[in-house]
Amino acid sequence: MNRRFTIAVPELVEKARSGDPRSIGRLISLVEEASPLLREVTQALIPHTGHARVVGITGAPGVGKSTSTSALVTALRAQGKRVAVLAVDPSSPFSGGALLGDRIRMSEHVLDRDVFIRSMASRGHLGGLSWSTPQAIRVLDAAGFDVVLVETVGVGQSEVEVAGLADSTIVLLAPGMGDGIQAAKAGILEIGDLYVVNKADREGAHTVRRELRGALALSARAEGAWQRPVLMTTAQDGGGVVEVVAALDEHAAWLQSSGELVARRRRRAREEVEAIAVATLRARWAQLREASLLDSLAGDVADRELDPYAAADQLLAT
Amino acid sequence: MNRRFTIAVPELVEKARSGDPRSIGRLISLVEEASPLLREVTQALIPHTGHARVVGITGAPGVGKSTSTSALVTALRAQGKRVAVLAVDPSSPFSGGALLGDRIRMSEHVLDRDVFIRSMASRGHLGGLSWSTPQAIRVLDAAGFDVVLVETVGVGQSEVEVAGLADSTIVLLAPGMGDGIQAAKAGILEIGDLYVVNKADREGAHTVRRELRGALALSARAEGAWQRPVLMTTAQDGGGVVEVVAALDEHAAWLQSSGELVARRRRRAREEVEAIAVATLRARWAQLREASLLDSLAGDVADRELDPYAAADQLLAT
Repeated sequence: MNRRFTIAVPELVEKARSGDPRSIGRLISLVEEASPLLREVTQALIPHTGHARVVGITGAPGVGKSTSTSALVTALRAQGKRVAVLAVDPSSPFSGGALLGDRIRMSEHVLDRDVFIRSMASRGHLGGLSWSTPQAIRVLDAAGFDVVLVETVGVGQSEVEVAGLADSTIVLLAPGMGDGIQAAKAGILEIGDLYVVNKADREGAHTVRRELRGALALSARAEGAWQRPVLMTTAQDGGGVVEVVAALDEHAAWLQSSGELVARRRRRAREEVEAIAVATLRARWAQLREASLLDSLAGDVADRELDPYAAADQLLAT
Repeated sequence: MNRRFTIAVPELVEKARSGDPRSIGRLISLVEEASPLLREVTQALIPHTGHARVVGITGAPGVGKSTSTSALVTALRAQGKRVAVLAVDPSSPFSGGALLGDRIRMSEHVLDRDVFIRSMASRGHLGGLSWSTPQAIRVLDAAGFDVVLVETVGVGQSEVEVAGLADSTIVLLAPGMGDGIQAAKAGILEIGDLYVVNKADREGAHTVRRELRGALALSARAEGAWQRPVLMTTAQDGGGVVEVVAALDEHAAWLQSSGELVARRRRRAREEVEAIAVATLRARWAQLREASLLDSLAGDVADRELDPYAAADQLLAT
């Protein structure tokens, strides 16, 4: 850790802004390590943020998430956009490991300096996904990427959290994965802005689309709300991906005109402030528990010279 | 809740000290409700505490916990001791319910004013078992009981927590309950001061005793440490229970002479102060989250007028 303190933050941020992938990677490593430098880093980044669109991509294992992500990157690059991919693995305390296979599958973009790909672990972090992901997104935003794709495996709570962090969330499905169950999983009906049935050339793809449309129609929304499209792709050969990009553009326009973009960014800011405050409280509490004051207060309570409420007050007052 | 604020605490404590079971019960209800009056109640109780011996009784379902507790009560009453039984059910958010059957089995003591029996729920409490049980023990100590028996089902973490609260902990076993597994369960070898094999007239009781003695011998202890006895009872007819009471007396004498009693009470005080401090922090945090300040700070962060760390600092400074 000590070595990190010799990093000159302004220089690192400047290099990241010029597109140097090593500097961008180091800044994200500072996030992963929960470095004490992060406060300074965040302050240096903020003036350069607010430009990137954040797109979440989630879905069950096997639906073709990384193939779809790779195809989206290709389509966005064709429009001249600079694209960053953040693969968040909520099940692993290690970065890289579990998602290495995915990164190899995205190897076609490895030599493109306008594409940055990084996997990030979040388990075991003080504040978890909701603490580390917004900070990594901020790095990529400040580094000048037009689109930040946040990819996560749809397991447990993580997909909901990622949806909370994105401007637009794509929920991926595929035929032959226990379709009825997929659609019934109430969570996915709540979190998607766009639904994509991948592997559209396989048997059952149209059934998945029909069932999903039915389920979405049932969870009716207020007038003026975004009408969530259900698209079909064959990500393997890029089929239908241009339509997904077009739907993302439409959603971005709607976010602007409806005022929802402002609301979402406020909600995200609220969650990030909360996550930082909780992490701060936990760290302070850990210090308090270690301190000798607790032992001496406990002694006074055991000797009935102090009541435990007054002791707790004294402990918290420090 | 409002009704509770009209309670005159000094009067209630005075009545509890005179042995009025209704007043003792109301004080324990204040603990269960996490009443705001508890601070005042605790201060009023403390000058009258420090007398009771706290004995924990734990064991798997089916070993005869409440029969053994009842037999212990009878033996202690024969010595003229006033006895309180606190049955803690860590699995239930309701008091009374799950342990009602046990209370009926202890009905022989219902008319004895020198015996007080109460079951208490702990799930869902802000501070859980480690928060509520010490406070209930304090009520019973101040009410003048010589012995407080804390009975808990041996499930999960609760038996370890109860052992942490008691001066002496009895671990109950019985033959025919998957004996090898019982003894192998490392937890029970750590928490007991006395081991009692109940249902000693049944086949396999001596095997349980032998295996347990072997396991205890393996977890060797320092010189001068308490030599944990393994006793045999048939609690149903009171057989062997006098020997358990004698072993408890020996343990009490050892606790005094070794200085371990002071050490245990300090450790308990430390845990109680911690539990109250954590509950206080949680309540404060819940208030902070509700406050409009968080919303306005989040707005400033979303507008990039404030960094999230500074916002978290401002939130926590209030």
